[in-house]
Amino acid sequence: MKDSELKRIAVLGSTGSIGTQTLDIIAEYPSMFKASVLTARSKWQLLAEQARKFLPDLVVIADEAFYTPLKEALADTPVKVAAGDRAIADAAGEADYDIVVTAMVGYSGLLPTIRAIEAGKTIALANKETLVVAGQLITGMLASSASEIVPVDSEHSAIFQCLRGEKRSEASKILLTASGGPFRTLSAEQLEKVTVADALRHPNWSMGAKVTIDSASMMNKGFEMIEAKWLFGCQPENIEIVVHPQSIVHSMVEFVDGSIKAQLGVPDMHLPIRYALGFPQRLPASQAPLQLSQYSTLTFEAPDYAKFPLLGYAFDAIAKGGNMPCILNAANEKAVAAFLKGRIRFVEMPVIAQETMLRTPFIADPDLPQLVATHEEASRIADDILTRMQA
Amino acid sequence: MKDSELKRIAVLGSTGSIGTQTLDIIAEYPSMFKASVLTARSKWQLLAEQARKFLPDLVVIADEAFYTPLKEALADTPVKVAAGDRAIADAAGEADYDIVVTAMVGYSGLLPTIRAIEAGKTIALANKETLVVAGQLITGMLASSASEIVPVDSEHSAIFQCLRGEKRSEASKILLTASGGPFRTLSAEQLEKVTVADALRHPNWSMGAKVTIDSASMMNKGFEMIEAKWLFGCQPENIEIVVHPQSIVHSMVEFVDGSIKAQLGVPDMHLPIRYALGFPQRLPASQAPLQLSQYSTLTFEAPDYAKFPLLGYAFDAIAKGGNMPCILNAANEKAVAAFLKGRIRFVEMPVIAQETMLRTPFIADPDLPQLVATHEEASRIADDILTRMQA
Repeated sequence: MKDSELKRIAVLGSTGSIGTQTLDIIAEYPSMFKASVLTARSKWQLLAEQARKFLPDLVVIADEAFYTPLKEALADTPVKVAAGDRAIADAAGEADYDIVVTAMVGYSGLLPTIRAIEAGKTIALANKETLVVAGQLITGMLASSASEIVPVDSEHSAIFQCLRGEKRSEASKILLTASGGPFRTLSAEQLEKVTVADALRHPNWSMGAKVTIDSASMMNKGFEMIEAKWLFGCQPENIEIVVHPQSIVHSMVEFVDGSIKAQLGVPDMHLPIRYALGFPQRLPASQAPLQLSQYSTLTFEAPDYAKFPLLGYAFDAIAKGGNMPCILNAANEKAVAAFLKGRIRFVEMPVIAQETMLRTPFIADPDLPQLVATHEEASRIADDILTRMQA
Repeated sequence: MKDSELKRIAVLGSTGSIGTQTLDIIAEYPSMFKASVLTARSKWQLLAEQARKFLPDLVVIADEAFYTPLKEALADTPVKVAAGDRAIADAAGEADYDIVVTAMVGYSGLLPTIRAIEAGKTIALANKETLVVAGQLITGMLASSASEIVPVDSEHSAIFQCLRGEKRSEASKILLTASGGPFRTLSAEQLEKVTVADALRHPNWSMGAKVTIDSASMMNKGFEMIEAKWLFGCQPENIEIVVHPQSIVHSMVEFVDGSIKAQLGVPDMHLPIRYALGFPQRLPASQAPLQLSQYSTLTFEAPDYAKFPLLGYAFDAIAKGGNMPCILNAANEKAVAAFLKGRIRFVEMPVIAQETMLRTPFIADPDLPQLVATHEEASRIADDILTRMQA
């Protein structure tokens, strides 16, 4: 596609944090982008509002209970309305668009992403769980597809940018930066007592609830490590987690000659979204760029694996391979949901993950139906553990 | 030239800091590089020693007084020996080599670099004064020559690496980092009293005397700004000097989308030399890479133009254009030499530069003979000022 053509964008998860920021970018460059599909899980009013503003061809609401009010809200528009997870996957596979932004939360991103790959679309990947759950499968599909992935996560966008113009074979290490989250400086005792409100208070990034909790537990960084492994074809032992509390250096790549390249910017997801949609072009931004004098001190330290066990479990899961990362992801989704509802304490989330990893049957080389079954089985086991913990 | 072929290297200034480190790299990769020409100003014993080790086709000593002892020292080798500045320029223009490393000190780099461009050679540019004195001329020559420049200065190597794979038109700003030198934290009163030994004690880099004094006065950073202007075709108002005392981030490039790319590494000139000689290949290094945990805090601040006036004079000189940077360079060479001999104080160097800039006739669009004449005239005026100051 030529740079000058209008790019048609499907935004899966348009009412979430990444989704709304994606629409900001689409609105910022009306001569470059057009929203053609918008989907949401349950926020049908916001979805209707977005549809009135962007007039996509199609909107889909995952929760079928909201089909009727959404349909009625858009009755006087030409926008087509559909409902259900199946309809979202169908849109990813069949709708008329150029780039899909996969901004759904968690496991639900998997099937639509697979459909988009089968359709040979460009994927602006914001749903890291897709690669966590099915990295091997997805990587295999990409190898025989016209589809390509451009990362949206700020860290992976940084790595992608650092590798631009470089030979992959000359990159020796990925330095994946982590803010360390709101609990970086707490003692183990203090960590026992943190509340949901504490965990939702991220120091640098404004994000959805799930990823904010995952950031506080450093599960997010573990998932990003797995995502980096699959996106950039590097081994986990060549990925170093570097805690960088200011979130200005978004990640780095070390090369065989000892040179390191880093990508920096203000902690604002509009930047990597703009990069992913504009790629290979960099689109001029109107907002003020990073003033390094305002962030005059950048610090770097090693992560504390003892205090944040989920980060280590991610390394364990990818070392084991097969369906183990899928198991960890399912257990974590249940644990985060339970923590957000006040059912368990922050420090109990790793306990659920660990026991679920031990109890769910291991499959070394799972296909898609086996991954779907693993997700269900691991979710059920995590639920069992949660029930027992509260007995 | 294919990567697998042996690259023949001419090292102009082989006995200086950059020169000896270049020979380290040539020795490190004997299947890739061969030293074919070595030249020095006056250190004939070291040059003879290097010639015995590397067996180049030709060695040239600039100071003709040392021709005979050098010739005798190499009488039992097949190495040809020549002497004089003219012979160095002839070697740059006529010898059989692929890459010339221009590692001479100051203005003396100009003529050999011009001859190398005329001969269509690849230039690993370590002599920034060449572009300071004659940037416009050199840039014009490069545009109609097969010759290309790969920078060796760590800052320009960093910028070059950050621009790799990027469109120049999408780069909006260069962030040129500066250690700030040994006197960064001194008060104006303390600066009045610094000694030569103080000025030669650079906090991070081990370099020759001239560039170490220029680092202490920040003249070096001003010259690097001018070098960056010509190398990367950007305007001085789009070059920001950022003081970064740790010398780990070697420079940065900001793009139109607000993204910044940085290149980092240990402060060791072997890295940018290895990059320049290997380009476009990155050569595996045996030394330990940067451990960010060892440099856990990186700081950034604005430079103090009042305390280091020579930095501002560089911006003045390039804004004025023509032969003004050449005048500044000539005055500075005289001032540094006088400071090193204890004839003037550190804070008197800018006085000499300023007065020389005021008194030397301005030429808006000088050709090479006019630049040569400017250098001589400005040097004479600077000498006058020095004589008067000591009267």
